Amino acid sequence: MSIEARIKELGIELPPAPPKGGIYKPVVIVGTMAYVSGHGPYLADGTMSKGRVGSDLTLAQGQAAARACGLAILATCKNELGSLDRIKRVVKSLGMVNSAPDFYDHPKVINGYSELFAQVFGADHGIGARSAVGMGPLPGNIAVEIEVIFELV
Amino acid sequence: MSIEARIKELGIELPPAPPKGGIYKPVVIVGTMAYVSGHGPYLADGTMSKGRVGSDLTLAQGQAAARACGLAILATCKNELGSLDRIKRVVKSLGMVNSAPDFYDHPKVINGYSELFAQVFGADHGIGARSAVGMGPLPGNIAVEIEVIFELV
Amino acid sequence: MSIEARIKELGIELPPAPPKGGIYKPVVIVGTMAYVSGHGPYLADGTMSKGRVGSDLTLAQGQAAARACGLAILATCKNELGSLDRIKRVVKSLGMVNSAPDFYDHPKVINGYSELFAQVFGADHGIGARSAVGMGPLPGNIAVEIEVIFELV
Repeated sequence: MSIEARIKELGIELPPAPPKGGIYKPVVIVGTMAYVSGHGPYLADGTMSKGRVGSDLTLAQGQAAARACGLAILATCKNELGSLDRIKRVVKSLGMVNSAPDFYDHPKVINGYSELFAQVFGADHGIGARSAVGMGPLPGNIAVEIEVIFELV
Repeated sequence: MSIEARIKELGIELPPAPPKGGIYKPVVIVGTMAYVSGHGPYLADGTMSKGRVGSDLTLAQGQAAARACGLAILATCKNELGSLDRIKRVVKSLGMVNSAPDFYDHPKVINGYSELFAQVFGADHGIGARSAVGMGPLPGNIAVEIEVIFELV
Repeated sequence: MSIEARIKELGIELPPAPPKGGIYKPVVIVGTMAYVSGHGPYLADGTMSKGRVGSDLTLAQGQAAARACGLAILATCKNELGSLDRIKRVVKSLGMVNSAPDFYDHPKVINGYSELFAQVFGADHGIGARSAVGMGPLPGNIAVEIEVIFELV
């Protein structure tokens, strides 16, 4: 099944492609590698999920924000690549959590994103190498920011 | 116009290539991809711009520090590659801002670097994928650190 | 001398390959590039070195933790690649230090990792491009996390 068909089957609704927040390109392609800029949890209504996970936000809210980063990345890639079917697999992600000083479950937060990509791209091609860490603050106090490298077909 | 000629025309003065601050190579080339180590805001007098943006430093000072990171990267690449004309385009940058806890304008800070590269390499090839985030502290309390992947000619 | 033989000669004992802490692959290979997920200081007894460097831990303890990250990466790569002799060289590392707010010697911390790789892979191939910065907190309050890109033979 194609990626586009799987997204429909899963009932996943993509937000609009997020507007750029600075001087950068959303995606740069070199050969078959697509470098995707850091994406925040851009929601369908144009707002972003904000706050520090572990104090302002619960783990579950952080996971939802990480999933929203993934949806925003998909929206950007559909816009930039024409079709998500051009994506072969997830290579490497950096998951950045806007973290309370004593919150340590960043991998669980970023799993909200990784579960989405495993559903969309499949359990082999949808799961890549990853680092998931706390840092911050993040731009606009967003809860999570994720950048990714895809391999294209 | 060549990159080297454009730098002259723009009146840009590069600092000396910064000394290494640890066990690493300034640039590693694999095929046509050049991986450049994180660079701080190394100034022509051998000092570094220091402090947290949003408390010790203003946004404008942070932007100047980000631009200085870019100039230091250019100095390193000229030294390592022989000529900046070997660089085809900016692929991906990670802009790390030494941030006050309540400062959220990291993309604006890193624009100081991205504007420089857009001038030097042109509005298409000079603008790449990017993440621009707060973290820290940074080594030696420097204000900004930036790493980049270039594609070579 | 092969990498495997050099490790024996140096008397280096690898820990078991660390268990995964989330939804990711330890290593993803694209062509001759191996993207290795972020690794913590996983010790032979299955525990991790924890705490902030500069307050909970000394510089020397931080360096030992960075070396432990390198050993864990070697254990993972031996497991995933079959043999470390498939690794040609270190391309790019990101060294993330769980840092006290006023600790600034992150490059010295990450040198504990870079010295190990220089010994194991040699002074040319074992030293790559690098960024070494403070951030945090890190998952499970581990002291250091390091991700790396290797070029394979």
